[in-house]
Amino acid sequence: MPIPTDHELFDLGDVVLQRGATLRDAKLAYKTYGTLNAERSNAVVYPTWYSGRHTDNEWLIGTDKALNPDELFIIVPNMLGNGLSSSPSNTPPPYDRARFPQITFYDQVECQHKLVSEHFGISSLALVTGWSMGAGQTYQWAVSHPEMVQRAVPFCGSSVTSPHNRVFLESITAALRADAAFEEGWYRRLPEKGIRAFARVYAGWGFSQAFYWQEEWRRLGASSLEDFLVDFWEGFWLDERDPNNLLAMAWTWFHGDVGQTPGFDGDTVAALNSIRCPLLSMPAEKDLYFPPEDEQWASQHIGRGEVRVIPGVWGHFAGGGDNLEDTAFIDQGIRDVLAMDP
Amino acid sequence: MPIPTDHELFDLGDVVLQRGATLRDAKLAYKTYGTLNAERSNAVVYPTWYSGRHTDNEWLIGTDKALNPDELFIIVPNMLGNGLSSSPSNTPPPYDRARFPQITFYDQVECQHKLVSEHFGISSLALVTGWSMGAGQTYQWAVSHPEMVQRAVPFCGSSVTSPHNRVFLESITAALRADAAFEEGWYRRLPEKGIRAFARVYAGWGFSQAFYWQEEWRRLGASSLEDFLVDFWEGFWLDERDPNNLLAMAWTWFHGDVGQTPGFDGDTVAALNSIRCPLLSMPAEKDLYFPPEDEQWASQHIGRGEVRVIPGVWGHFAGGGDNLEDTAFIDQGIRDVLAMDP
Repeated sequence: MPIPTDHELFDLGDVVLQRGATLRDAKLAYKTYGTLNAERSNAVVYPTWYSGRHTDNEWLIGTDKALNPDELFIIVPNMLGNGLSSSPSNTPPPYDRARFPQITFYDQVECQHKLVSEHFGISSLALVTGWSMGAGQTYQWAVSHPEMVQRAVPFCGSSVTSPHNRVFLESITAALRADAAFEEGWYRRLPEKGIRAFARVYAGWGFSQAFYWQEEWRRLGASSLEDFLVDFWEGFWLDERDPNNLLAMAWTWFHGDVGQTPGFDGDTVAALNSIRCPLLSMPAEKDLYFPPEDEQWASQHIGRGEVRVIPGVWGHFAGGGDNLEDTAFIDQGIRDVLAMDP
Repeated sequence: MPIPTDHELFDLGDVVLQRGATLRDAKLAYKTYGTLNAERSNAVVYPTWYSGRHTDNEWLIGTDKALNPDELFIIVPNMLGNGLSSSPSNTPPPYDRARFPQITFYDQVECQHKLVSEHFGISSLALVTGWSMGAGQTYQWAVSHPEMVQRAVPFCGSSVTSPHNRVFLESITAALRADAAFEEGWYRRLPEKGIRAFARVYAGWGFSQAFYWQEEWRRLGASSLEDFLVDFWEGFWLDERDPNNLLAMAWTWFHGDVGQTPGFDGDTVAALNSIRCPLLSMPAEKDLYFPPEDEQWASQHIGRGEVRVIPGVWGHFAGGGDNLEDTAFIDQGIRDVLAMDP
């Protein structure tokens, strides 16, 4: 799939990051869908996921969907590190490549907040929603800007990256780094074996055991299990996914924790307690790295928190837009939350 | 841990393998516990698991256990490929190292059968039991030699390697192979980065999400999550686990399927149907690569099949002998089956 070029670039200026570095002349790539109304009351923020681009979010937007561009003004900001916004692959020296600075979920949301408030003059968001790391950004929005976020729907993601999820991240990144061609991030040629290993490790986690048992990959156009591993998985991660970008985003993910928001001193529960808006979390029944029990745990600390488990065997990719039943379930959840009072 | 030397070596002679190669002058390393009675009716076969050695099975043997050496004669054969029996690391050229032949579960059991019948003159086994790949060998024994096996207790393993389990195997081996030092198996120095990546990938699968959430690794002597990944996981796989041995055993595992036993023509269900003895399968509730539902599926095709799920959060390592509750559960299952009529 060609890298999209249909987005805008917002000048963030010099961004002083939570961990201390300054990312100078930073850019936020974004695309909007629909029209901001006169009251500026119909805006939605819908951030991207690990290596996803704004185009990868479009399956959930449509006139037949809860995210209806005839009614809502939907802003899809690309995560820093994804290759379109400021990233290891497109930042000029000296903060380029393996020297790209550490960026937290808090930083991601602050950059998006600048776009939303300064560029669009929006002071209230009807909804924030997102899949996977997009769910992490959704939680972060609800904690960082409770005065703005009226509703939140994270799906297949979490407010804090669990220890097991961190082990998963260690596994994909260790596989990538094992390739000598990676050269600690200063590669002169693509560490292709490492990326392919990264892809194979990811494959076991992305979908459930039952998904593979039932050969559901046929519904994604694969002709055999090995074809699925090569075409879907290796193909995806070889598609212009710069290795340093992958590692930069993995760093963000690994350190995800709303408790690290300034003012909460590492207290995740206190941060969850501070969320004021209705928040519907939709984990997938068989998600292997964001299991539903983690979301049940978080929800009990959120005043207006609710959990609806997406049933079925697609695991994490229930939230990826490829399975019609799961998409309908997620769409209905968003529709229900949009109908709630903030 | 030093490589054990307290075992015997049985000369298998020239072994013609199922896939066609002949492993010449092959050796089977084994150790026995207890004494064979005059009727030769108290023998148990208890095969090893992926990279395990006979000493790694001893936690389940004891005078306070169902596997009581005061009553039973327990034979622990080391799997071909584990470094003690014939393996890539100890076979002379030309079938050494990366050229080690493909060995199936069927081959493993035929070699063990030769030891049991020819060396010990045993024609009936009171029990076959084992963990993980040892469970796979247990199933294979029950299919290959229904006339001999009186009872079978596979735990945390399967009769056929599921598609998802194969993806898991692809992931660990791809991580190992990504290290250029591996040189397609002709390494001149240890591909240490690859082994460490292999270890990190394995870590996410070996225990459940909840195990990590609850920091159960503290019970294994780790002082932090990272300490657990380095000391327990990297330490284990760096402990004289030859990379070609790991790949040879992974090949066996990947191709596990009792339906591949001669006479069944690939029909797994027919092979399961042929099992005549009582067979108790004990999967672990949260085993991420041998999930209980796969065993429920197999059990319905076994006349005297039964499934008991090991409760708790230890996942696959419920069968590893490190958790007292799980060990007691497994021991009780074996005790109950030993009390059954064959």
